Amino acid sequence: MPRKTRWEDVRRTAAALFAENGYAGASLSQLARRSRVSKPGIYYHVRDKEELLFRICESTMSALLSAARGAVAAGSDPVSRLRGVIRAHGMHYWAHCPEHVILFGQMRYLSPAGRRIVVALEREYLDLVRGIIRDGQRRTLFRRVDPTLAAFALFAMLNTLETWYDPRGRLGQEAVVAEIETLYLAGLATESPRRRRIARGSRL
Amino acid sequence: MPRKTRWEDVRRTAAALFAENGYAGASLSQLARRSRVSKPGIYYHVRDKEELLFRICESTMSALLSAARGAVAAGSDPVSRLRGVIRAHGMHYWAHCPEHVILFGQMRYLSPAGRRIVVALEREYLDLVRGIIRDGQRRTLFRRVDPTLAAFALFAMLNTLETWYDPRGRLGQEAVVAEIETLYLAGLATESPRRRRIARGSRL
Repeated sequence: MPRKTRWEDVRRTAAALFAENGYAGASLSQLARRSRVSKPGIYYHVRDKEELLFRICESTMSALLSAARGAVAAGSDPVSRLRGVIRAHGMHYWAHCPEHVILFGQMRYLSPAGRRIVVALEREYLDLVRGIIRDGQRRTLFRRVDPTLAAFALFAMLNTLETWYDPRGRLGQEAVVAEIETLYLAGLATESPRRRRIARGSRL
Repeated sequence: MPRKTRWEDVRRTAAALFAENGYAGASLSQLARRSRVSKPGIYYHVRDKEELLFRICESTMSALLSAARGAVAAGSDPVSRLRGVIRAHGMHYWAHCPEHVILFGQMRYLSPAGRRIVVALEREYLDLVRGIIRDGQRRTLFRRVDPTLAAFALFAMLNTLETWYDPRGRLGQEAVVAEIETLYLAGLATESPRRRRIARGSRL
């Protein structure tokens, strides 16, 4: 399917352009030049720049949700499910970094209708993660932190990786995700008396 | 000092304007209208829009650093120091939300010289937090996670609060910071065998 592959290239180039210059600062003429297609070639696929943004956000969020669902299905308990979701999210993030930068920072440029669709997908993902956390709490594996807050705290760490991760640093992309995984799951895990003292900040 | 107070009002209005519309989308004419000062009144204080952005970033980052240093001085061990820093950061964030939104997302618009100054302050803050984490690791209170990564994971949660916190939700601003505090310190704390199993995702 050469046409589809070609269009996916164009969409990736568009994502890179929006991530670099911001949606407002990027034009379809730039996109045409950089991806070596004609503007009519772009308009064959999308009505306008906003539809392109929508397609990027919608497909990225859908793919992230499928990856997370796969991880949940493969897990046997709340800990392995949550670990699988963190890994799937981290790996999807690194493989589609410009798309995630856009999802995190440029959703405000979507039309109200487009925004509703992407927000609904985000909501499904939030519900999936909160569901795992609640399940872990019921089984007294996880502490009684607010599940919504705990889910967003995880997304905050994963979705900003690109802003603070230095690819020249000594940790590889997988190792960074693994460290977040450990820190986060240890934060959720119910406590021994010693850890309870440390977490509550009692004098040691 | 009415002039100073007035100018601080203008600066806060500028921060709100940049946070709402983005630096690129905001103009000094808008600022003059919204803050009811003349444009010459603005130019009396700053050379141009970029200097205004720099002043906001520089003063916010300086104030955050002082607050954190105060918390470190008041703490008696790595846990109480880190807890104090998280609280000070969280409360500074809520009291200066537009300024933090700008620091997090609009530093790219600073001039190279301005950017260097603000990045140096950020670096001092990073070193402060990493220092506490390393100290806790030496005392075997904190696990052997990469200190730079652990510091950025904390900043990621605190600096994106505004994007996901719903002020109509059931958790107050202080409670949200307190939950992050618990989750984060528990994540860092060294483990009991049971917690080690949960954090490593061994079968339960």
